[in-house]
Amino acid sequence: MVLELLKGNERVVIEGVSPEINGGRFPAKSVVGDNITVEANIFADGHDVISACLLCRRANDNNWTETPMQLLENDRWRGSFIVSQQGIFYYTIMAWVDRFKTWCQDFKKRVDAKQKDIEINLHIGARIVREVAGNAAVGDRRQLLNLAEVLESDKTNRKEKVRLAMSDELSELLEKYADRSAAVTYPKELAVSVDRERATFSTWYEMFPRSCTVKPGCHGTLKDCEERLPYIADMGFDVLYFPPIHPIGHTNRKGKNNTLTAKSSDPGTPWAIGAEDGGHQSIHPQLGTLEDFIHLVTAAKAYNIEIALDIAFQCSPDHPYVKEHPEWFLWRPDGTLQYAENPPKKYQDIYPFNFETENWRELWEELKNVVLFWAEQGVRIFRVDNPHTKPFRFWEWLIAEVKKEYSDVIFLAEAFTRPKIMYRLAKLGFTQSYTYFTWRNTKREITEYLTELTQTEVKDFFRPNFWPNTPDILHEYLKTGGRPAFMTRLVLAATLSPSYGIYGPAYELMENIPREKGSEEYLNSEKYEIKHWDTGRKDSLKEFITRVNRIRRDNPVLQSNRNLWFNATDSENLICYSKHTEDLSDIILVVVNLDPHNTRSGRINVPLKAWGLDLQQPCEAHELLSDTRYTWQDEWNYVELNPIICPARIFQVHRRTRRE
Amino acid sequence: MVLELLKGNERVVIEGVSPEINGGRFPAKSVVGDNITVEANIFADGHDVISACLLCRRANDNNWTETPMQLLENDRWRGSFIVSQQGIFYYTIMAWVDRFKTWCQDFKKRVDAKQKDIEINLHIGARIVREVAGNAAVGDRRQLLNLAEVLESDKTNRKEKVRLAMSDELSELLEKYADRSAAVTYPKELAVSVDRERATFSTWYEMFPRSCTVKPGCHGTLKDCEERLPYIADMGFDVLYFPPIHPIGHTNRKGKNNTLTAKSSDPGTPWAIGAEDGGHQSIHPQLGTLEDFIHLVTAAKAYNIEIALDIAFQCSPDHPYVKEHPEWFLWRPDGTLQYAENPPKKYQDIYPFNFETENWRELWEELKNVVLFWAEQGVRIFRVDNPHTKPFRFWEWLIAEVKKEYSDVIFLAEAFTRPKIMYRLAKLGFTQSYTYFTWRNTKREITEYLTELTQTEVKDFFRPNFWPNTPDILHEYLKTGGRPAFMTRLVLAATLSPSYGIYGPAYELMENIPREKGSEEYLNSEKYEIKHWDTGRKDSLKEFITRVNRIRRDNPVLQSNRNLWFNATDSENLICYSKHTEDLSDIILVVVNLDPHNTRSGRINVPLKAWGLDLQQPCEAHELLSDTRYTWQDEWNYVELNPIICPARIFQVHRRTRRE
Repeated sequence: MVLELLKGNERVVIEGVSPEINGGRFPAKSVVGDNITVEANIFADGHDVISACLLCRRANDNNWTETPMQLLENDRWRGSFIVSQQGIFYYTIMAWVDRFKTWCQDFKKRVDAKQKDIEINLHIGARIVREVAGNAAVGDRRQLLNLAEVLESDKTNRKEKVRLAMSDELSELLEKYADRSAAVTYPKELAVSVDRERATFSTWYEMFPRSCTVKPGCHGTLKDCEERLPYIADMGFDVLYFPPIHPIGHTNRKGKNNTLTAKSSDPGTPWAIGAEDGGHQSIHPQLGTLEDFIHLVTAAKAYNIEIALDIAFQCSPDHPYVKEHPEWFLWRPDGTLQYAENPPKKYQDIYPFNFETENWRELWEELKNVVLFWAEQGVRIFRVDNPHTKPFRFWEWLIAEVKKEYSDVIFLAEAFTRPKIMYRLAKLGFTQSYTYFTWRNTKREITEYLTELTQTEVKDFFRPNFWPNTPDILHEYLKTGGRPAFMTRLVLAATLSPSYGIYGPAYELMENIPREKGSEEYLNSEKYEIKHWDTGRKDSLKEFITRVNRIRRDNPVLQSNRNLWFNATDSENLICYSKHTEDLSDIILVVVNLDPHNTRSGRINVPLKAWGLDLQQPCEAHELLSDTRYTWQDEWNYVELNPIICPARIFQVHRRTRRE
Repeated sequence: MVLELLKGNERVVIEGVSPEINGGRFPAKSVVGDNITVEANIFADGHDVISACLLCRRANDNNWTETPMQLLENDRWRGSFIVSQQGIFYYTIMAWVDRFKTWCQDFKKRVDAKQKDIEINLHIGARIVREVAGNAAVGDRRQLLNLAEVLESDKTNRKEKVRLAMSDELSELLEKYADRSAAVTYPKELAVSVDRERATFSTWYEMFPRSCTVKPGCHGTLKDCEERLPYIADMGFDVLYFPPIHPIGHTNRKGKNNTLTAKSSDPGTPWAIGAEDGGHQSIHPQLGTLEDFIHLVTAAKAYNIEIALDIAFQCSPDHPYVKEHPEWFLWRPDGTLQYAENPPKKYQDIYPFNFETENWRELWEELKNVVLFWAEQGVRIFRVDNPHTKPFRFWEWLIAEVKKEYSDVIFLAEAFTRPKIMYRLAKLGFTQSYTYFTWRNTKREITEYLTELTQTEVKDFFRPNFWPNTPDILHEYLKTGGRPAFMTRLVLAATLSPSYGIYGPAYELMENIPREKGSEEYLNSEKYEIKHWDTGRKDSLKEFITRVNRIRRDNPVLQSNRNLWFNATDSENLICYSKHTEDLSDIILVVVNLDPHNTRSGRINVPLKAWGLDLQQPCEAHELLSDTRYTWQDEWNYVELNPIICPARIFQVHRRTRRE
């Protein structure tokens, strides 16, 4: 440290800023209208009073907007700003030792201690006021000089001087011209990425278009999907996600139940992308045309549904890329192409790209063009298949590039992989992420996992999307728990996470037969064959799902990850949690019986007092699934849940406003 | 992100490095001989195998030394290096996708799965080996080419090829020439500051030299201190710390018990530094001369005791600086100097420096010269008074400057202040720090505080020094708990922290009368008057302290902060904890009765199994304070502690090596 280069008077330290993802390497996430709360440790040597403000600006605006920060306790400060538009915002912090506030604080202590000799302190105060006046605008300067004179005047009595010294009038003027010559600015500009609302709050329905026809034996089409829209919209879904809709390869095509030899009638898996009809920018001819697709996108919009496409960057052996760009693939010494493998498993119908090719720049550009192509057709939501098997930098670059042209694009990362990798993908730009929810089934597992997602730094960069099932995952709990299990997992997903999705109609029709014991694969999986679902079945969960999604739509607390609390219960089978808005105007409390086989009862803790409710009079709990009303007078209340009838309760808690 | 500037093949991510203090802004701390353990999250996309190594170097050496890192679990890696000298070391991490290891891992899976068509994979392996051979030294190249040939040869049988492919011979050669062209290096060089051993393990005794005479009514001298050395050395202390030994001001001198008017016989407080006889580089004439001081430093060294001086950067009104450098002080509008205040408290006998003076550079230089002056006289340990009231940058600069000339200097920060400020001072360079130990007295308080100090990031930059008492702090526990309380707090300080200190002889003589009820000040405090202590008193704790310090010296586990575990007990009054060396060769278990008034008994948990002890045969617990031996057969053992006899047990746990 060279003494001459130091600024001796910069006494304030700013550290421990939150959010600050990987030391500022990545932006935090938010949606339009969010109030971004920033905290930091701010302190200086000694006992002087500090002023601090939060600075924020849009990426393309060089002017900072200032908001004052408040001291919480123990040198922790907090401030906030509202993000009003999509895009990147930057924020940083400035703080300084405030000479006048310090004087004022000490002066107040002297007065409180009834010290007699305060005249000298009034002179010191007046001196500060005069110095500030030197930098003030003409009108303010005159006023400040007058005030300084009064502070020192022999003609004014002590009481009046004390009042003036501690007056708002004086402190506001001094705040306006506070001496910031020794202010310290946090050396980083931290970023927050602002998305549209659906980035956080979205309700997904996954469906295979080819299984959409009502005529058994036929290949479903995009037009059939259009027919299905009212059904999906009725249930309250706002994202309709399709597995890949591109031409499917013939070479090494898989048969039913993933068998190695396909019959000529087997349609193959949609993830074996590419054939003579085209690749990632083409539509499987049996589904229809690009015009059909655009028509579907427009029709869906009328139902407030967005079509989400699957981005699966891999090729069938018949993909045009294989001939056009052999340099993008890995060749084996025998001159054959390297198919996908995770030894000893082999996927002979799929060739991965070789991202270590010397021609990676051309490859990256082409893959970006694939996304841009579909964005041009009106698609703004992409579910990305296996992103963890492509380089992190590729995704960071691709997402940033696409967002330059389509700032409202949403990417969901399908990565049921190692936790640090899952988080890394979220940090580098994925809007939403698949999670471990599917495998978190006990009270302890759910509580611990949700605590990690909502109470730690993870909440700042990771937006969970909870899936009780997918075409790849039929969990043991669903296999053995029957209808109650499907209801339970739906309520948990829908109320614990602002974004969730189901793979239907398998879900509402409670499909739960595995290919073999212990397998998470479905028997006769739709991945390898066309299915025909009887969506009108009487036992369908359609009505239940509709009710749950309506509750989500009506209650803003269920649309964000904030303020999730786990409430105590006296049973290991009953999980109870609540969410509330900051102003406590909306409070939702959920109780779920995790045992799908038996009626369970117990007492749940309802923190009425913490919610600002009067313990002297009963409060009303409106159970929204059954539309029945309960009265709670105590903080511990009895519940009994028969899973055959309904394994969950969703209470809206009302403050009593009326009195007789 | 500009595509052209990206390196597409750098697939590895290194993040979450520990230790990394404030994002690398500050060095971690260690002592010579320490094994520095570094951890990081290291991962890449996909399933490829990664190699990682830790790089370290001395500050003045540009060559990195490499050590391989090991995967722990869940993408967390660990490596370590030994620091052999004082000074700054740097470390960073390099990692890369290892093509051969990946091939080898997959190949093993194929073989394990009894795949038949492994020939093509052997060819792929051989291709990698040949590529590596291109970069190898002549001898190794020939060997690698030979091995590649065997892998592909039709003449070699499958079994032999498999053996060779997975042989150490091949993998070691390939490790040597691993392709690091796409290696990723962590972008920061992190620092670790290496001190001598006493920086961590030190045993302090604070004493007022002026109270050292054996002749009542006389002013003690440095010569008297020399007489006292055997007494202090016998007890096992290795740092003897003096409050300021400089001339004391006359103006506004404080009298007995901090009264505003001193009698002519009152000696004043040693912290009111400076008079006509000199300032911070002078010795109070009644204590002796600089020669006496140097003689004392040398004499102490013979007892393995270092003299520590107090650095109190403030002046009495009579300090020569006040006349020579009026610009270093704050002047009030009436032309008087601003004395120290913490309204409504006033310290009229002390003038603080005005660190916001325009002449701060000269002030900083002079204060540095004060420290250098005493370093030149042989002092290497400084206890710094109220560092939190001087700018952080000043200390960071001063400590770095002094260390340039005296790398073995130790600074102890006296900052019983807000936690974030206490930690900041440690981060910016203070070797050791006072703590909140003095106010942590219950089982819960002690457990939580020690967990924070030893199990979190704090352990990397903060070296606690535990003081059960100081001239400023007589805690309620000592006031009311009598002799058992003094024994308890000594054992806790001495065994929970590798550095601790007492203010004596007040401590061993159990001085515990406060100035007034509720005050933490001593009645007739030595800060304002000369005391005469009867160090030969029969009830002195001298022998007990001697025993405890000998146990500290004999047991390396008590000399570091590592591996502290709190053991369960079934009593709120019994606290139990243990420390062990990495190799479990030294295990110490401490039990303390925190109730100074009553005998308490209960069962303590002894984790014999975790210590690698055989549960089939009894183990021996040697109680070191009483030199008695116990036999433990169970993991729960009964203890009973009568505080009047001894409120603590310190067990050395022996593995049984002999058998009959």
